Amino acid sequence: MTAEPPQGFWGVAGLQGPRRAPVPDEPFRVTPWEVEGVVDYARLIKEFGVDALTPDVLERLKKSAGGELHHMLRRGYFISHRDLKWVLDEYDKKNPFFLYTGRGPSGPIHLGHLVPWILTQWLQEKFDVDVYFQLTDDEKFLFNDDLTLEDTAKWTVENALDFLALGYKPGKTHIIWDTKHAGVMYPQAIRVAKKLTYSTAKAVFGFEPSSNVGEIFYTSMQSVPAFLPSVLKGKNIPCLVPMGIDQDPHFRIARDILPKLGYLKPAALHSKLLPGLTSPGTTKMSASDPNSAIYTNETPKQVRAKVMKYAFSGGQATTAEHRKLGGNPEVDASYRWLSLFERDDRRMEKVAEDYRSGKLLSGELKQMFVDHINAFLEKHRERREALRPKLDEFMLKV
Amino acid sequence: MTAEPPQGFWGVAGLQGPRRAPVPDEPFRVTPWEVEGVVDYARLIKEFGVDALTPDVLERLKKSAGGELHHMLRRGYFISHRDLKWVLDEYDKKNPFFLYTGRGPSGPIHLGHLVPWILTQWLQEKFDVDVYFQLTDDEKFLFNDDLTLEDTAKWTVENALDFLALGYKPGKTHIIWDTKHAGVMYPQAIRVAKKLTYSTAKAVFGFEPSSNVGEIFYTSMQSVPAFLPSVLKGKNIPCLVPMGIDQDPHFRIARDILPKLGYLKPAALHSKLLPGLTSPGTTKMSASDPNSAIYTNETPKQVRAKVMKYAFSGGQATTAEHRKLGGNPEVDASYRWLSLFERDDRRMEKVAEDYRSGKLLSGELKQMFVDHINAFLEKHRERREALRPKLDEFMLKV
Repeated sequence: MTAEPPQGFWGVAGLQGPRRAPVPDEPFRVTPWEVEGVVDYARLIKEFGVDALTPDVLERLKKSAGGELHHMLRRGYFISHRDLKWVLDEYDKKNPFFLYTGRGPSGPIHLGHLVPWILTQWLQEKFDVDVYFQLTDDEKFLFNDDLTLEDTAKWTVENALDFLALGYKPGKTHIIWDTKHAGVMYPQAIRVAKKLTYSTAKAVFGFEPSSNVGEIFYTSMQSVPAFLPSVLKGKNIPCLVPMGIDQDPHFRIARDILPKLGYLKPAALHSKLLPGLTSPGTTKMSASDPNSAIYTNETPKQVRAKVMKYAFSGGQATTAEHRKLGGNPEVDASYRWLSLFERDDRRMEKVAEDYRSGKLLSGELKQMFVDHINAFLEKHRERREALRPKLDEFMLKV
Repeated sequence: MTAEPPQGFWGVAGLQGPRRAPVPDEPFRVTPWEVEGVVDYARLIKEFGVDALTPDVLERLKKSAGGELHHMLRRGYFISHRDLKWVLDEYDKKNPFFLYTGRGPSGPIHLGHLVPWILTQWLQEKFDVDVYFQLTDDEKFLFNDDLTLEDTAKWTVENALDFLALGYKPGKTHIIWDTKHAGVMYPQAIRVAKKLTYSTAKAVFGFEPSSNVGEIFYTSMQSVPAFLPSVLKGKNIPCLVPMGIDQDPHFRIARDILPKLGYLKPAALHSKLLPGLTSPGTTKMSASDPNSAIYTNETPKQVRAKVMKYAFSGGQATTAEHRKLGGNPEVDASYRWLSLFERDDRRMEKVAEDYRSGKLLSGELKQMFVDHINAFLEKHRERREALRPKLDEFMLKV
């Protein structure tokens, strides 16, 4: 598979660039700030020391979630975890977890960002638990020469609205804005920092002598929401972190250090680093390419133009050939992205079938995706603006 | 000369140990956390790139201060500066500076800590300016394995009272408690951190791979009070930092970075790293030796016992020899420490004369110092406890 971080949060790596076929055994590199090469998830799972999200674990989750499994889980968009079974066992023993996810506010939100957030919202709904959403404006400021704190403040507000618009519960959803909540975050972050040597941080994140001292410190801040609710409530509460797998290194560190401070290891649920719109699903990363993603602030017309022009097609070169040979939904970007948003399995199966048989043309599939996503985005933007005056109510109270 | 950090603040290095004669050209090392070897101030001034506090600069200070010079300045306990003349020129042009000093709250306060604070209080009185006093509990927590945040919180309160008891003006004296003021400190600290590479921090402070990531970040927090008043008041205000010279590396960094953020370079006034009670004034540093310092929380009896037993004497071995040969006030710890607290030059001259002539015995000189310091400490403790219920009034309001 291939990568388009950031899928959900924190990460900074750009959208993907030119198409490229996968090369077996080719080296790749995944850090929270950079993804290079074509990611082989089986190898990444081994390298990161995480557990594959096997059918039995999904069954376990389905059972605790009341017999249902989100379509993103059913369709394999989440690939690995840490301690998910333990979190569910505790939940069944009336010891509920809280959810923690986040976002590095460096620009507008695209559909890929929404993937772990949509799943997090589903988890909140099914388990009726608290959600902590961290906006790491400090990270984005520290890791991006071009971003000022004014820029990150603007994106913090805009990105928080995109998150909340997915349907998070008031009263159970708590936004942590790193610099605004520094009064409560920093005193906890230094407790983590004291246990983390430069050599470990360097080994995990690959810092250079030219790295700034804020970048080196930063992971301490990302650890904090994993135990802050335990601090605030004065008792240990299990934590589950849905995230793009590129963010796992932060939590490898958190899982090592938090027990030394008397807290529980955070559990994790990892999504794939999704291929962009321009990709057949196997693409090397390059610098930011706005055409490879659909942003929540794009007009229906812009979305249509982008999909029609740039979405990688699994169809044939001519209508006649397509009718004869059929298309390949697996590599078709519109099909793949539709499958992230369309819940109905039977509809997706029919689309795949019609595409393979040649009944459904590439342009028709694109239009189907455009219609679905434009309808989604229209409602999303309405919810977003309705929430704008209520944003303060969601801010973490300390 | 020799060293007993921390004289004033921030620094952590212990009190001095065994007596040892000075060795010319011997290597020494001064960092904010460690002083090794016998410090040669002429060389240190060159190495640090600071300016010697020459008679003409002292005259300049005396002029702006209304014709008076504090006895610690007259007696050479402050040795160097950065941009002191510029700060005074600005003051004379009705552009007053603010004072910034601080303390790493890791334990009780001894007389050595009071030296730059006494001078800072004098400067506040003479120039009627604001004082910002930073209590770096984060630093002490991060740099000391044995200290918890509960320990540093306790010492923050106790140390702040020792500072305020020296007579700082209410309304013009602002205490910054790093972890309690993290909400305003951290967002400013990351602006500094973004401009500071690991390699520069390592070169200045000598970090190791085993240094924790909080230690590496910390200097950013110490930079903040040098420009925070400018941030809060929305205009650039000159800053003067009285400090032990071991703290200068932090401000070398601050002076490099603050102009890049649009702020003024902080000016500095450096005290010597004072020799301890057990020292003839030329001592290699060793681990902490509580007998080499007098703490503000020691009873008159404890002070007397400590001075009588441990204070390095410049006197002769027997009374008969002393009467015949006389003593040496220069190496006598009681004389040196008395000269830090006794303002009256004529009295000090008479003491020196009587000691040199053999008229004043070593035990009598010790008693003279004990009486002076016990009287000082008694009043100090009264003022300290009277301020305890008022501590909140001195906390920085943001």
